[in-house]
Amino acid sequence: MCGIVGMFSNHDVAAELYDSLIQLQHRGQDSAGILTSDSQLHAKRGTGLVRDIFQDEDMEKLTGDIGIGHTRYPTSGTRQGFDEVQPFTTSVPFGMALVHNGNIVNYAQLRDEIIIRRNRYLNTHSDSEMLLQLFADSLQRAMIRSRGHSNPTGKIESDEDFFSLIRLAVADIFSLAKGSISALSVINGKGIVAMRDPYGVRPLVMGERVSAEGKSEYIFASEDTMFYMLGFTLVRDVLPGEVIYVSMDGILHSAIIEEKPFCPCIFEYVYFARPDAMLNNVSVYRARLRMGQNLGQEWIRTFGDVRPDVIIPAPSTANTMALAMARELGVNYSEGLYKNPFIGRTFIMPSQAMRRQSVRYKLSPQRIEIRNKNVLIVDDSIVRGTTSKEIVSMIRDFGANQVWFASACPPVVSPCHYGVDIPTAEELIANRQTQEEVRNFLGVEKLLYLSIEALIEAVTRKGRHNMSSPCHVCLGGPHFISGEKDGIA
Amino acid sequence: MCGIVGMFSNHDVAAELYDSLIQLQHRGQDSAGILTSDSQLHAKRGTGLVRDIFQDEDMEKLTGDIGIGHTRYPTSGTRQGFDEVQPFTTSVPFGMALVHNGNIVNYAQLRDEIIIRRNRYLNTHSDSEMLLQLFADSLQRAMIRSRGHSNPTGKIESDEDFFSLIRLAVADIFSLAKGSISALSVINGKGIVAMRDPYGVRPLVMGERVSAEGKSEYIFASEDTMFYMLGFTLVRDVLPGEVIYVSMDGILHSAIIEEKPFCPCIFEYVYFARPDAMLNNVSVYRARLRMGQNLGQEWIRTFGDVRPDVIIPAPSTANTMALAMARELGVNYSEGLYKNPFIGRTFIMPSQAMRRQSVRYKLSPQRIEIRNKNVLIVDDSIVRGTTSKEIVSMIRDFGANQVWFASACPPVVSPCHYGVDIPTAEELIANRQTQEEVRNFLGVEKLLYLSIEALIEAVTRKGRHNMSSPCHVCLGGPHFISGEKDGIA
Amino acid sequence: MCGIVGMFSNHDVAAELYDSLIQLQHRGQDSAGILTSDSQLHAKRGTGLVRDIFQDEDMEKLTGDIGIGHTRYPTSGTRQGFDEVQPFTTSVPFGMALVHNGNIVNYAQLRDEIIIRRNRYLNTHSDSEMLLQLFADSLQRAMIRSRGHSNPTGKIESDEDFFSLIRLAVADIFSLAKGSISALSVINGKGIVAMRDPYGVRPLVMGERVSAEGKSEYIFASEDTMFYMLGFTLVRDVLPGEVIYVSMDGILHSAIIEEKPFCPCIFEYVYFARPDAMLNNVSVYRARLRMGQNLGQEWIRTFGDVRPDVIIPAPSTANTMALAMARELGVNYSEGLYKNPFIGRTFIMPSQAMRRQSVRYKLSPQRIEIRNKNVLIVDDSIVRGTTSKEIVSMIRDFGANQVWFASACPPVVSPCHYGVDIPTAEELIANRQTQEEVRNFLGVEKLLYLSIEALIEAVTRKGRHNMSSPCHVCLGGPHFISGEKDGIA
Amino acid sequence: MCGIVGMFSNHDVAAELYDSLIQLQHRGQDSAGILTSDSQLHAKRGTGLVRDIFQDEDMEKLTGDIGIGHTRYPTSGTRQGFDEVQPFTTSVPFGMALVHNGNIVNYAQLRDEIIIRRNRYLNTHSDSEMLLQLFADSLQRAMIRSRGHSNPTGKIESDEDFFSLIRLAVADIFSLAKGSISALSVINGKGIVAMRDPYGVRPLVMGERVSAEGKSEYIFASEDTMFYMLGFTLVRDVLPGEVIYVSMDGILHSAIIEEKPFCPCIFEYVYFARPDAMLNNVSVYRARLRMGQNLGQEWIRTFGDVRPDVIIPAPSTANTMALAMARELGVNYSEGLYKNPFIGRTFIMPSQAMRRQSVRYKLSPQRIEIRNKNVLIVDDSIVRGTTSKEIVSMIRDFGANQVWFASACPPVVSPCHYGVDIPTAEELIANRQTQEEVRNFLGVEKLLYLSIEALIEAVTRKGRHNMSSPCHVCLGGPHFISGEKDGIA
Repeated sequence: MCGIVGMFSNHDVAAELYDSLIQLQHRGQDSAGILTSDSQLHAKRGTGLVRDIFQDEDMEKLTGDIGIGHTRYPTSGTRQGFDEVQPFTTSVPFGMALVHNGNIVNYAQLRDEIIIRRNRYLNTHSDSEMLLQLFADSLQRAMIRSRGHSNPTGKIESDEDFFSLIRLAVADIFSLAKGSISALSVINGKGIVAMRDPYGVRPLVMGERVSAEGKSEYIFASEDTMFYMLGFTLVRDVLPGEVIYVSMDGILHSAIIEEKPFCPCIFEYVYFARPDAMLNNVSVYRARLRMGQNLGQEWIRTFGDVRPDVIIPAPSTANTMALAMARELGVNYSEGLYKNPFIGRTFIMPSQAMRRQSVRYKLSPQRIEIRNKNVLIVDDSIVRGTTSKEIVSMIRDFGANQVWFASACPPVVSPCHYGVDIPTAEELIANRQTQEEVRNFLGVEKLLYLSIEALIEAVTRKGRHNMSSPCHVCLGGPHFISGEKDGIA
Repeated sequence: MCGIVGMFSNHDVAAELYDSLIQLQHRGQDSAGILTSDSQLHAKRGTGLVRDIFQDEDMEKLTGDIGIGHTRYPTSGTRQGFDEVQPFTTSVPFGMALVHNGNIVNYAQLRDEIIIRRNRYLNTHSDSEMLLQLFADSLQRAMIRSRGHSNPTGKIESDEDFFSLIRLAVADIFSLAKGSISALSVINGKGIVAMRDPYGVRPLVMGERVSAEGKSEYIFASEDTMFYMLGFTLVRDVLPGEVIYVSMDGILHSAIIEEKPFCPCIFEYVYFARPDAMLNNVSVYRARLRMGQNLGQEWIRTFGDVRPDVIIPAPSTANTMALAMARELGVNYSEGLYKNPFIGRTFIMPSQAMRRQSVRYKLSPQRIEIRNKNVLIVDDSIVRGTTSKEIVSMIRDFGANQVWFASACPPVVSPCHYGVDIPTAEELIANRQTQEEVRNFLGVEKLLYLSIEALIEAVTRKGRHNMSSPCHVCLGGPHFISGEKDGIA
Repeated sequence: MCGIVGMFSNHDVAAELYDSLIQLQHRGQDSAGILTSDSQLHAKRGTGLVRDIFQDEDMEKLTGDIGIGHTRYPTSGTRQGFDEVQPFTTSVPFGMALVHNGNIVNYAQLRDEIIIRRNRYLNTHSDSEMLLQLFADSLQRAMIRSRGHSNPTGKIESDEDFFSLIRLAVADIFSLAKGSISALSVINGKGIVAMRDPYGVRPLVMGERVSAEGKSEYIFASEDTMFYMLGFTLVRDVLPGEVIYVSMDGILHSAIIEEKPFCPCIFEYVYFARPDAMLNNVSVYRARLRMGQNLGQEWIRTFGDVRPDVIIPAPSTANTMALAMARELGVNYSEGLYKNPFIGRTFIMPSQAMRRQSVRYKLSPQRIEIRNKNVLIVDDSIVRGTTSKEIVSMIRDFGANQVWFASACPPVVSPCHYGVDIPTAEELIANRQTQEEVRNFLGVEKLLYLSIEALIEAVTRKGRHNMSSPCHVCLGGPHFISGEKDGIA
Repeated sequence: MCGIVGMFSNHDVAAELYDSLIQLQHRGQDSAGILTSDSQLHAKRGTGLVRDIFQDEDMEKLTGDIGIGHTRYPTSGTRQGFDEVQPFTTSVPFGMALVHNGNIVNYAQLRDEIIIRRNRYLNTHSDSEMLLQLFADSLQRAMIRSRGHSNPTGKIESDEDFFSLIRLAVADIFSLAKGSISALSVINGKGIVAMRDPYGVRPLVMGERVSAEGKSEYIFASEDTMFYMLGFTLVRDVLPGEVIYVSMDGILHSAIIEEKPFCPCIFEYVYFARPDAMLNNVSVYRARLRMGQNLGQEWIRTFGDVRPDVIIPAPSTANTMALAMARELGVNYSEGLYKNPFIGRTFIMPSQAMRRQSVRYKLSPQRIEIRNKNVLIVDDSIVRGTTSKEIVSMIRDFGANQVWFASACPPVVSPCHYGVDIPTAEELIANRQTQEEVRNFLGVEKLLYLSIEALIEAVTRKGRHNMSSPCHVCLGGPHFISGEKDGIA
């Protein structure tokens, strides 16, 4: 999981890219980078949080009116270090850079293509670096083919000409690279390119604003969470299978390269995206309210008139769902678990026995809301089940009568191949245990999962979107990209 | 404002002091320090957040079964640097260290006493360092007086003897130092001392647990927010005017040195303390629920049947108050402002015009909860008024019909002399403007402040506390410490 | 001025490259870098001294049996930052890296060729990065030409084939790039390449050793100063106009690409190289002894029987020359100036007046060797004249009778276009002043410069070298590279 | 071994203290610190070299017209970390700081005195911190005794009064602390104090200059190596048993507290001090010339007409001795070993076998001066013998005919109790082996040690000094301080 952003502006973009990464930080807190272009490429990357990576002297060097940024989520199973921090760059042709959210499933096979057949060097094992080299090499080959080998490179005449070369290169990518691709690329001296794979698995939205000089400026981002703050208006999604090119004179070119069924990730709505985001024309906040509403209705269908004394969300994503469910059931909602915003490490003193890393370092129950009550905990999902179990145990310690649990997401039974960091199948509790076993493991008297149908209904209920079958492979839904088993770590 | 903690244990305390500071971090994010003792004193201090200051190698050096810790709030008006990071230490007598939450009002006068009359050196302009030197010198003088000048120092016979010297020294402090004092001191080879000024302005609570070996262990802290996590049970407050001494063999000695009317700070309940804390036998969470309830009742008394469509808290302290008020009024509560937990800086690119530091970098409104509605914003208090105004402006931008505002705290009209960082009188909007002017400044159609009586009632409603007149000088309440004007920055 | 080194070994080379850079540190103290290859390229670069740049964790990552290293001299007139720290790399084709000692005179013209005609990106304004991109692009073009554009790249069959492509690429470099080139390049998966321009301006020597397994291992370096330490034997110089390629199986291929008159830099012998180095088959130490000897003979020719009481070198390069001159004249040699090996900065306290950065912070005279004596100071050269003047002034302060000065190098009248950092013509004292004016400026009673003929004789006197006309453009010698005025900063 | 400096000036002293530490860096490269006073004490300490410790922001904070500085030598056998970096400070009385060169032999016994009898805290195991606490406590006791316990402290009337208290305190030190003491102390608001133990083991010199305003300014330092640079004139040594006090108005008070035979350390002249220093009225450079001269004469007495072809010093201390010996013998002197001024670490690559840390990383022989010659190596001393052996081995590798060795110091047979870091007796080769065995160990055909008589003669030959029996315990000379065995690590 990652957050990406790109801007075409009429003044330096680095500060606004920084602000954007702060608003995308929830999509990845492992590392971040910004690259800008003003005939030279300027980049700063680092590990850790955005606020710790960029200093005054970095920002001063990041000159240029176009640029891209990236925040990375620590993906389990791959060894990632500083070398793998995006944006990636290559100097041939032109000087190109790229940021990518998604996952290339047939990575191993494409790596050989790049290194052995195309004689290009890959510095890391990142599928995103490979995507850049594939884009660059396909672009260079398109140039060579269009000129003959006596003059293999040379000056390109017009932006239209250049966009036709880009379309050829992106078609090459879509035909070779299997998996999810939401990517932004800066081509030095040429402009900025946005592309999204034909299934549209990962989100990518586009905004526009008019500068003081009356010129259009564009932003592309994983979520529109920074649009209001920066004065942009949400225009539309980058479409599945689409490539967009904004040339140096600010003209926007676009084309659909390939069409497939639209399968955007449903987990963005359950957990990943920020509640104030609008993705694929669906409000994340409304989707969550509807999940809570549906959860309430399924509660009634399952447990009849039984009602908890209080509904407490596992903070903070579940707050919206819990509030809607409480309204639906007509019971009290309470922030009964205080979440400490300050995170610490766990130090083990030599003289002490081993101490488990514990949820109780982050959450504190409110005794008054719990003591002698039937408490219903609402969480967005149950993945490994360990955090949920720990929360239940704390609620019991503070004197609850009965403890019940509701998950706004159906059982998670499979890892994700398209870019969400879900644990291996062995770690997923719902993959190993029946619902009754999960209930016993958590130590609750009642357990409710939202059904797949109700979840999809909550996301797709209404609006001008054209989403009918969101990707839910992780919930046992159908695979829709061929050959996908290849690249799973 | 600061957070302090001290522990007497039977194993190394550094890791648990660290955990405690993480749970006190909301009381001060400017700097922090830990000191432990095992015949040597070991200390680590730093500026910034607790999680950034302490590394593995620091923790390994912080050996010892007793120790103290501190988190500092950046106090306006004083130049504070690394040298002023607590705990402070002095090598005469014994090796002593101290952490302090509070403010000494007659600092300037006492500084002369320490330097000129007592020939001691003050390395900083911190009133807390002065408190340590005053404590150390008074203790040394008590020793000299008890022995005669032929043997001015020398070995002390028993813990009882030593506690009598401590009582003399603390009596000296209470007679000389005017202001608020909640302090903890480690005396090398002797034990740990807790003291609280006779008015009990700042909080200080005590917990106990029994070690695996069956021995009592003690914790003293500004709030009991880490007690459950560390296995301690809340015993009681350190009493106003009390000194407690835990000697090296684990015996707890205590004495009331001086008695005055009990005047604990009311602002702890309004804003400063964490909701899960129990201070002066009053639950902060319950106090805030009652503030919301009283706010609802005063709304009805003021505006009759008029009801908002939705109540939205200014996150996060006001959530509890807003939820209780919504229940009292029977209207919907909604988390209509998303608070980004990731904070960034504001970079100004050379080519850009100056950009104001803005609330909208931290808060994002939910359009669905706002559009065409009458929105009531509930906040814990209005201090300068600038943040509130900005929130109102955003709510309007997102299409609210009318915007109303309620503050769970009466108008703040005066700075605090006893340790809360409230701006100067000039910056306090309620000190300069009438309620109608404030309403106009905020740009709202309706404005409600909770009354002082209702606030005090909310804090003191019931329970086994003996608090009748909490300090509310900042709300225009009476001064109760003589000579207090002296030390105000 | 820079120092470069490259190794082909049968085990990891990073530690030995590090040791080599320590032995080349005198050739550049501004920044340094190491790159190794083991199918991946691994690099570490930094500013400052070698000992401060490389840490344990860096060395652990620098795996691979072949590698290159570089130390950089701060070249006046160009803005250089971290981005310009060598080795440079490019990912097309293969993954290539390069280190370079020298200067490309027609940089501006070639920059356009690379960017506009060849569509490659240059990240810096370093002529060395341009040299790498030129090498890489010429190699890629040679590959495309040899295959046709239907399969522009693809697998290369044999090392012999590959060396023929390298020869084409280096011929391209020698025909396009005017200036001095001593360069080493790692080609990922292919081996290591050494090249030296046809005039052989900058040094480059080659050593060989046999590994424990009986295999040949090779080193290429600016100087052989680390050969003994690492167990290598000096084989020969890389010849002017030669390219050498060591393939992955350890076979050494070589070819002379172009022949020109041999014009190695004479200033290496005067000042730059370490005394224990053997360059172009001439010992630097012997050359300096002969300079001192010739200086003694020219003293006698100029001043007859006049003798100083003592000869004191300006430490440390001149020690060898001064000792030989003292022997020739039969007078005492003394280390009368102590050179503090510890260097500090110059801090100006706010309350102090400006203080000049002074030679006397680094050198301390020995009164006993100076007082009432006629002192002859011997230095390797006089460039700006300011340091010499300061030394003379100190010697006078300590009571010398007369102070005389001898320079082992003729007047320096022109900046260098081929890689030695000599100041601009305006700063060169001998370019502005007559010898009598220089004598007055220094404040000495007698001044002697070695003649150009005597200097060349000292360097070329005997041995199996084929050097007849070393480059001495800086001393007014003839220009021998066409178009050279173009690239001077 | 350490270097200390203190200044009384009429403007900020930090920059000049920094310059002084650069000139004392050879006396200790392990850590350094500066403390200044301007009614507040300001300090900066750090580990490593002076040039790396002090930054602009540190220097700006180090305000004040008086101050002290220290460079520390890593003393074997004691665990020393950052906490032990001088200057040490204590806040009672006044605020005092101290730097110390020397060693307190009865440390363990005095530690108990300070902690148990005087109830003071020692933060480290440094004898220098103990010296400060002893000085401070004795001064405080003198104050208490002079006033009675009803007013144990209080204002001091005059500088004369205060100097009488200082004299009492220093007398207390000299009667209690056995060992070598050269110390400087800043007393906040009072001035600066210099003291030297009655035997005068470690050096301490005093300089004076007149400020632009016509006021006297004073410097005290281990060596006068920075006097010329800073404009000071050497006045005299601080005398054995003397205490000097410069009060805030610039008046210098001095008194001899105790008199003993004068026993300055002879090893300062052999190795430790810089050649340009004048200590105890004896020039280190002249002493070394005379050592070389005496070594030449003893060579003739021992080996008759046998002469080496060349004399090569082990750089750099022995250069002076070797030059004088070469003159005495009438043979050629040559800098046949090049010493690389750039030091690196030794990295061991995982794939490589263990590699010994080797002299050949630092020294390179000149083949021309060695091949087929009888080479006499001159070194200042032979301590462990391992470096000497390695040098001999290199000289043989480069083709010497015979290799001979001469040491300007007699056999070192005993560790030092007074502050020079000489290894334990077991490590000293001359303590375990006969001269013939040492010769065999080194692998030389001839070995000569200077005799003790000739060494003492070389140091004391002439001049206005009153030194007759310098301390040479390390060479087997008599112990002269009682009880000294106690404190040896």
